Amino acid sequence: MPSKCRFCDKQAAVYLRYANLRLCKDHFVNFIENRVKGTIEKYKLTNRGDRILVAVSGGKDSVVLLDILYRLSEVYDLDIHGLTIDLGIHSYSPAYVKVANEHYKRLGVEHTIIKVGETYGFTVDDLAARWRRVCSLCGTIKRYIINRFAVENGFDSIATGHNLEDLLYQGFSSIVLGDLEGLAKVSPKLEGKDKLITRIRPLAETREKDILLYAMFKNLKFVKVECPYARGARSLRLKHILNMLEEESPSSKFAFSNSIYKKLGPIVSSFISKENEELRSCSVCGMPSRGVTCSFCKIALKANPDYKPKSLKLRL
Amino acid sequence: MPSKCRFCDKQAAVYLRYANLRLCKDHFVNFIENRVKGTIEKYKLTNRGDRILVAVSGGKDSVVLLDILYRLSEVYDLDIHGLTIDLGIHSYSPAYVKVANEHYKRLGVEHTIIKVGETYGFTVDDLAARWRRVCSLCGTIKRYIINRFAVENGFDSIATGHNLEDLLYQGFSSIVLGDLEGLAKVSPKLEGKDKLITRIRPLAETREKDILLYAMFKNLKFVKVECPYARGARSLRLKHILNMLEEESPSSKFAFSNSIYKKLGPIVSSFISKENEELRSCSVCGMPSRGVTCSFCKIALKANPDYKPKSLKLRL
Repeated sequence: MPSKCRFCDKQAAVYLRYANLRLCKDHFVNFIENRVKGTIEKYKLTNRGDRILVAVSGGKDSVVLLDILYRLSEVYDLDIHGLTIDLGIHSYSPAYVKVANEHYKRLGVEHTIIKVGETYGFTVDDLAARWRRVCSLCGTIKRYIINRFAVENGFDSIATGHNLEDLLYQGFSSIVLGDLEGLAKVSPKLEGKDKLITRIRPLAETREKDILLYAMFKNLKFVKVECPYARGARSLRLKHILNMLEEESPSSKFAFSNSIYKKLGPIVSSFISKENEELRSCSVCGMPSRGVTCSFCKIALKANPDYKPKSLKLRL
Repeated sequence: MPSKCRFCDKQAAVYLRYANLRLCKDHFVNFIENRVKGTIEKYKLTNRGDRILVAVSGGKDSVVLLDILYRLSEVYDLDIHGLTIDLGIHSYSPAYVKVANEHYKRLGVEHTIIKVGETYGFTVDDLAARWRRVCSLCGTIKRYIINRFAVENGFDSIATGHNLEDLLYQGFSSIVLGDLEGLAKVSPKLEGKDKLITRIRPLAETREKDILLYAMFKNLKFVKVECPYARGARSLRLKHILNMLEEESPSSKFAFSNSIYKKLGPIVSSFISKENEELRSCSVCGMPSRGVTCSFCKIALKANPDYKPKSLKLRL
C-alpha cells in the first residue's frame, strides 16, 4: 500500500483516522499548529496585543503549548512570558525546571521561575510528609501562584497546556458525578473577573497522542517521568473509557468536546452564575476566595506557622 | 464464608455490590419493589386515582414493570390497563403477544392488543422489505399508537419499561453527540401537554441485571429472542462502557442517573423549552406533530397509499 503524505511526495509518518489523513512529519506539525490556531480563533482565546502568561511544567503538553504559542505570537501580536513553579519535589522539580529553562532560552522567551520553598517557607515534599493526598493541595498552590503572578504583573490571560483528554476527563467525571460547577469549568476559555485572571487552554481540541507526536517530530525535550506523588489510577481508567469511545467512532472525542465546550458547558455556566455568590477577598492575602481565608493561605499557614503572603511582582 | 440474607436466615441468592447487600430471593424481590416505589415517589410519577396505560412488549423489562405496577396499584390507588402492539413481525410478534396475554390473564389486568396490520394495512415486515433501517420507524409507530390510544381513552399517563441502562445509554450518547433535545428526554417522567400524554418510567433507577433476576426469582415468563430487525451493536458497546464505569465504582451508574435526572436534564430542559416552538396538529390525523404531517402518517402513507387515520377509542 502506498502511503504518501496527502500534501507532498514524502512518506507519510502518521495516519489520523479522525481526519482520514496521512501526513509526513512536516505537514503533521503544520496540521497541529493550524488546529491550535483554529481553537484560538473559534473560542476567541486571545486579543491583539495581549500579554499572556504561559504556565510551563516541562511536561509534553506545556512544552508544546509554549512552542506553538511562540510561533503564533507574531501572527496574533501576543507578548508571551513563561512561568515555571519549582514545587520543591526533590526527585522531580530539578529535572522539569531544567527542561523549561532550556526551552525559554532556545526560544528567547522572557520567563520567571518561582521557588515555592524560598518564597513561602515550605515545599510540596513537606506537605507530602504530613498529608497523604497531596495532588489537590499541589493544584491549589500552582493555581494560586500563577494567578497571583498574573494579577500583580498585569497579564491579560494565563495559558495552560490542558489537552483534549484532560478536559474530556474532567467533563466526563463532572457529568457522572453531577458536579455542575466542575462541568462549567470544562472550557477552552474561563473568563476572569477582578483578581481572577482569564484562563485559556489552546490545546483544548488537540489529542494527547498528537501532542506527543508533535513533540517527537520537532525533537522537543520534555520530562517523561511522572511526579512521585501522582496517583491518577482513576483518571487513567476514565481516559481508557474515552479511548474506547474513540474506537467506536474516530471523531467521537471531538463530538464530545464540542458538546461540552459549546452546549452543555455554557448552559450549565449560565444556570450556575445566576445562583452563585460573589467571591470575597482572602483576609490573609487579599486574593479571591470563597471563604474568609483562601485555600492557599490555609495550606501555607498549616505548613509554615510563620507564613506571610508575598508579593510576586517582578522588579523591572 | 457465610452468606446469609441480611434480613433473614435464608441463604443469600444475590449480592448487590452497589448496596453492599446479600439477599435471599424473597428479600431481593422486596428490595426491587421498594426501589421502584422509591423512584415513583421521588419523581412523583403517579397521583392517586390515575389511569395508567402500561406498554407491554413481552420483554423482561415490561413484564416486570407490569408485575410491579400491578402490585403497587392498590398502594397508590392506580387503575392500570395493558397495551400490546402486534407489529406484524412474523418470526417475533406472535411469541411476545402470547407472553403479554398470559401475564394480563394471570394478573387479571384489563388490556388491549392492537394489530398494526389490521388497523393500518401494513406491517413492520412490509416496512423492512422496503427500508433498510426499520428500528427507528418501528419506534415511531409504537410511540404514535401508544400515545393515540392513551389520548382517545382518557389515560393520565403511559408507563414504559425503560430501565436504568436504557436511559443512561440515551443520556450518555446524547451528551457525547451534544443532542440537547435527546438529553432533555432522559428522565423518569416526561410531562405531557395537550394531546401528548405524560410518560413515566418507573424502572428508571433499576438495573437491567436486577430486573432480570427479579423476573427469574418470580418465574415470570418473558420473550428472550431478539427482534430479527434489531441492530443495536453500538448500543451494546456503549452499555459495555457504562458497565466499565460501574466496575470503577459500584454506585457510579446511580450517581450518573442522579446527575442526569435531577441536574443536567432539568437544566437543559428549561433552556430548550424557552426557545422551542409549539407543536402543531398533523394535517392528516390531528395528533401532535412538528411538521405539517406527523412522522407516523408519513410512514403510513408511504407503506399504504390507501391509509386513513383510525380512531383507537375502545368501544365499551
